[in-house]
Formats: sequence, C-alpha cells, structure tokens
Amino acid sequence: MEGYRILEIKESVFADNDRDAELLRQELKEKKVFLLNLMSSPGAGKTSTLKKTIALLKDEIGIGVMEADIDSDVDAAAIEKTGVKVIQLHTGGMCHLDADMTRQGLRGLGTDDVELAILENVGNLVCPAEFDTGSVKNAMILSVPEGHDKPLKYPLMFSICDVLLINKIDVLPYFDFDMDKCVEYVRRLKPEMKIIPICAKTGEGVEEFAQWLRDEVAAWRK
Amino acid sequence: MEGYRILEIKESVFADNDRDAELLRQELKEKKVFLLNLMSSPGAGKTSTLKKTIALLKDEIGIGVMEADIDSDVDAAAIEKTGVKVIQLHTGGMCHLDADMTRQGLRGLGTDDVELAILENVGNLVCPAEFDTGSVKNAMILSVPEGHDKPLKYPLMFSICDVLLINKIDVLPYFDFDMDKCVEYVRRLKPEMKIIPICAKTGEGVEEFAQWLRDEVAAWRK
Repeated sequence: MEGYRILEIKESVFADNDRDAELLRQELKEKKVFLLNLMSSPGAGKTSTLKKTIALLKDEIGIGVMEADIDSDVDAAAIEKTGVKVIQLHTGGMCHLDADMTRQGLRGLGTDDVELAILENVGNLVCPAEFDTGSVKNAMILSVPEGHDKPLKYPLMFSICDVLLINKIDVLPYFDFDMDKCVEYVRRLKPEMKIIPICAKTGEGVEEFAQWLRDEVAAWRK
Repeated sequence: MEGYRILEIKESVFADNDRDAELLRQELKEKKVFLLNLMSSPGAGKTSTLKKTIALLKDEIGIGVMEADIDSDVDAAAIEKTGVKVIQLHTGGMCHLDADMTRQGLRGLGTDDVELAILENVGNLVCPAEFDTGSVKNAMILSVPEGHDKPLKYPLMFSICDVLLINKIDVLPYFDFDMDKCVEYVRRLKPEMKIIPICAKTGEGVEEFAQWLRDEVAAWRK
C-alpha cells in the first residue's frame, strides 16, 4: 500500500483569483509555511530536481510536496521514496492550478509539520503562468533539449518566476543550446532572475538551489 | 523584409467548437485542402521536423504552414527558409487554437494553391488536446528527453492523435527512455496509433512520416 493519497481537486468557484491568492499567502505567512510553485514543460525534470533537492534539505527543514497532474501518480510515488510527505493532486483535466485548488492541496497534505511546501504544477509553460497559486516564490525549469529560444515564445512564464533552473546541462554537447543567448533573453524579461544551471541526474548545481531555498524559507518564517 | 505576415488572431465567439470544427472540415473537403494539426511540448522539435518533412514534399505537394505562438516569429522565419508559404499566428496569450482561430489562420495564409496546410499548434500537451481545430488528422511529437512516462500523464493528447513521432532518437544513449514501455503506454490509449521514431536533426525516419502524409493527402483529395 502506498503511503500517499490521491486527491481529486475541484474547480474553483472564486472569480477573483488574485485576491484569493493574496489571502492564501497571508494564511501561509501566519502559519510560517513557505510555498514554492515549481513549473516547467512536460519532462523538463521537475520531479528529478525535487528528489535531489529534498535529499539535501530534508534533515533541516520540514518538507511537504504536492504533485499536480491530470492523471497518474508516478510523481508522488517517486517523491515518496525520498521519505518526505507527499500528496498526488488530480486536476480533472485542468491545465493549471489556481489559489483555491492549491489551498485544497495544502489541506489534503496537512501543513502542521511543514515549513517548506512545494507545489509541482502541471507540466505546461502557458496556463500555469496566468494563475497566481498563492505561492511565496515561483521557480521554473528549462531543460537544455527544449532550446534556448523558449523565453521568446513563453515570455509570461519567464517574467513571473524568481528563479530559473537550466536543467540537463550534462547533454549540452549534444544539443544546439546557446547558454549566453538564453540568459540574455531571460534577462530582457526579468533582469533580476536568479539563474542556476543544474543537472538533476548527477546533482550538479542543486546545492545552489537548495541554499536559495534555505535563505528564502528562513526569511519568510522570521 | 520578411516574406511572411504576422496575424493577431482573435478569440472565437462560437460557443460550439465541435460543430464549428466539423463545418471547417467540410469546407476543407470541398476545397481539397488537407489540414494537419501538429502538437507537442515546447521544444520537442515541431519546427525542425516540419523543415525536414517539407524538404521531402514541397516539389510534389502545395504546402502552406501556420506557426502559432503566443509571441515571437522565430518559427515562421525558420519555415520561410524552406521556400513554402508561411504565416505566423499570434494567439494573444491563448494556450491553444480552436476551429475558428484556425479558420482565421487559413484565411490569412490563403489556401488557393495549398493542398497540405499544416498548423503548428502552441507548444502544450494539455489544452490543444481539448479543442478540435477542424484538422483532418492530428499528429504529435514526443521527444526522448521528455521521458517515456508522458502518455500516463497526458492521456488525452495521446488519445486524439493519429500519428506519434518520437523525436531526438539520436540522444537515446544519454537518457533513460524506454521505447518499449512508451509504445505500450501509447497503445493502451490508442491501439491503432501510427508510431514513427525519428531524428529531425539528421532526417532519420522522416521519410516514413512524409509517406504517411502523401497517402493521407491523396486520400482526402480523391
């Protein structure tokens, strides 16, 4: 029997998501829970990156993970092996999560022993960028095989994120990925973006992301 | 000066997209225009695959391409170099195209000399699957770096497509991609799916896709 639950989340009835997201952030501030919203294309490496990040942080910080997908529970099963609390959220076909859907997830997860809650959003560079989940910070992963031109095509996603992980740098020799151009395109949209090249497979660069999280969680809970 | 136009398409006013899509297909049947709707995640290789496919077909078949993106015109610029007619569609932030948006694109492109019209949809495995564009056939690309578990997570997309191109097979040695498992997951959703492993970079496998298109275009125009 699995140690995690699958929660079917319901479509929100709230018309004003921005207001609802602000309310959720206030609730999280009072409870001293830091919520990270992690986004990317399908297959960019969200779950692999989380596994390596959790391994670095789980002895210091109480972590809970929400895995949002349209279907399947392969990601929750993968995260469960790290030993942290995890819940699989099914979005009923929805391509994104908004603040109320995230709230449903947090309730299902339970946050009493959680200092860092992580929402792994649906794999999609478009719709999740349009809905504030109530997260304290937004992170995204762009993987080398996707190409360095993605900031040009999905500008909103790059504009709303605080940190960008450029994943799968181990395969840079096999792809026409221009790191300098990518960074330049990103900086045009978000000059202050923290950019961290990583390889989730080997763990390269993940400590820098973990340190960023340590600092952000500590600042939020002060 | 570029030889292609950028068209800002408008959100549809039609409530019944399925009915509108059927109407568009009838119009296309009368005009003997075959419309292919090509979908994938961001960066799976839609444009690269089209470039190689067009090179094989453009001397036999009149081709017109619609490049749909939220922003930028890098894809239209790339397709223009192949020598076929192309138009860049901007979706105004929309994550998918429906039938009326596709009709706007076809009008902008002009179909008098077009036997094969190709819509390169917005890079997204979720929303485009939910909207019938009026296409005669749907094709999708899954790339090796995305992983073999994608059919489990995005079942609708795999269910509505007629042909699946598995791209970037040149990098199979560097990724944990299980081709047999991928094919098995796909067949569960769509037993009759035509599956073609390709490498858009080298052109490997693309002739099989081109032949599938030759046959489909000929059958539609009979």
